[in-house]
Amino acid sequence: MEHRLEEVQRAVAAAIEAALADLPPGDLTDAMRYAATGGKRVRAFLVLESARLFGVEDLSAMPVAVAVELLHAYSLVHDDLPAMDDDDLRRGQPTCHIRWNEATAILAGDALQTQAFALLADPVIGPAEARIALVARLAEASGARGMVWGQAQDIAAETAGTPLDLPAIEALQHAKTGALIRFSATAGAIMGGTDPAPLEEYARNLGLAFQIADDILDVTASAEQTGKRTGKDEAAGKATFVSLLGLDEARARAAAMVARAEAALDPYGDRAGNLRAVARFVIHRRT
Amino acid sequence: MEHRLEEVQRAVAAAIEAALADLPPGDLTDAMRYAATGGKRVRAFLVLESARLFGVEDLSAMPVAVAVELLHAYSLVHDDLPAMDDDDLRRGQPTCHIRWNEATAILAGDALQTQAFALLADPVIGPAEARIALVARLAEASGARGMVWGQAQDIAAETAGTPLDLPAIEALQHAKTGALIRFSATAGAIMGGTDPAPLEEYARNLGLAFQIADDILDVTASAEQTGKRTGKDEAAGKATFVSLLGLDEARARAAAMVARAEAALDPYGDRAGNLRAVARFVIHRRT
Repeated sequence: MEHRLEEVQRAVAAAIEAALADLPPGDLTDAMRYAATGGKRVRAFLVLESARLFGVEDLSAMPVAVAVELLHAYSLVHDDLPAMDDDDLRRGQPTCHIRWNEATAILAGDALQTQAFALLADPVIGPAEARIALVARLAEASGARGMVWGQAQDIAAETAGTPLDLPAIEALQHAKTGALIRFSATAGAIMGGTDPAPLEEYARNLGLAFQIADDILDVTASAEQTGKRTGKDEAAGKATFVSLLGLDEARARAAAMVARAEAALDPYGDRAGNLRAVARFVIHRRT
Repeated sequence: MEHRLEEVQRAVAAAIEAALADLPPGDLTDAMRYAATGGKRVRAFLVLESARLFGVEDLSAMPVAVAVELLHAYSLVHDDLPAMDDDDLRRGQPTCHIRWNEATAILAGDALQTQAFALLADPVIGPAEARIALVARLAEASGARGMVWGQAQDIAAETAGTPLDLPAIEALQHAKTGALIRFSATAGAIMGGTDPAPLEEYARNLGLAFQIADDILDVTASAEQTGKRTGKDEAAGKATFVSLLGLDEARARAAAMVARAEAALDPYGDRAGNLRAVARFVIHRRT
């Protein structure tokens, strides 16, 4: 799996470069490219591997993989803004508004979102029906019922100063990070013209395990390891899976969810080996 | 035409309400609804009237009309932010970040953009081919080569303190406000499955006339009339069509462009009466 992940990382980096190559030169395009650089590319990996399950080749699935990475990049740029999480470090580099300025960061995020939807119109993906279905699903996952709603809840809880309880955190993370992971892991079924439901269970558990692992890293890892400031949640008195469950119980839950995610892939047999491996990877990663 | 514009304004308001009705209650949804309220709905009018030219009914074209209005609303919310144009008044009301806060305004803008693309997936619009073509065109018009690029250029010029010359202002406005107007005025041809080229000339002239009229209003109208702060461009030493051409020449240019826009509609005969009338309306409006 790790060989395949590295292959995906290289291919996605090249495809992102190509997707942004024709934009007018200037700060806006530079900031977009900067924001879209780096990262583990787990979401792109999920798109490409779920596509393979249904016989859809990397070439066809790549614009969808790039779209979800650009969408994710936009969310990071906006979340890092001073009015939001106010972060100055991301993927080991100064955040976009530090490197340029707030206006450029807002606009680069805006245009990265737009570019994500533009990519879903690429005919190489397949029939128009599949492409427009992906548009609807990406919008649902990332908009006012999905990712953006989750971020709004997160900020509201921090502003109110009343830490959330476990069901509230689960609902928040289900939307904030889970929805885009669900989109990614089910995209292959949409491209393949089949029912995405069997992959939903995999993606739901993977998404939550992913977030628990993030909370664990925030306590156990250094900024050098993760490329972003750590220990922020604790300093802010923010409720996380770790603060609510303790480190051991959080680890146990994440492992149980990964097991459930792996089991959900049984119908796909050996062909889902990489999807099983990436589920284990998200809780064993050190960055 | 004015009767039809009022009819469109009422129908679009109801359709926006319906499009946002199912979102989770809270500040985010409230801010989205607030930002999408009011306005002249010229873009929606262009969508619905260009659709009529090709026999596409209001019912089918309405999600596209709403999409372009939500896209426009998102751009206003983000443009008004302190890091951008720093405006506190819009459509006669406090801007979104004044009424709520910056984080809510950023997220509401983000989600309005997402919702715009979501609406284009509505099957009532027509075949999947037409819907995905609209996605590609809306992304092209509003992204890093269109509206967002124009706004980035505008801010860069203001930051640099060197006023733009006429060709630079035309290029900027062609992107910043023109691209979305071109999308709107050609959307009907895409829905009708015909060549949008004949409407491009209409839309190009209309878009520039619209912006010149805006610059004229910034000098001649009061905030009570326009619902936004006026005289800002002059105070900022910003180059506009009026500062470069003078008021009389700017008026003459706008009128000449409206005449060209009207002439471009000749192939459509009387059926384009409302599109001709709206072109005259944009330079005679007082708000």
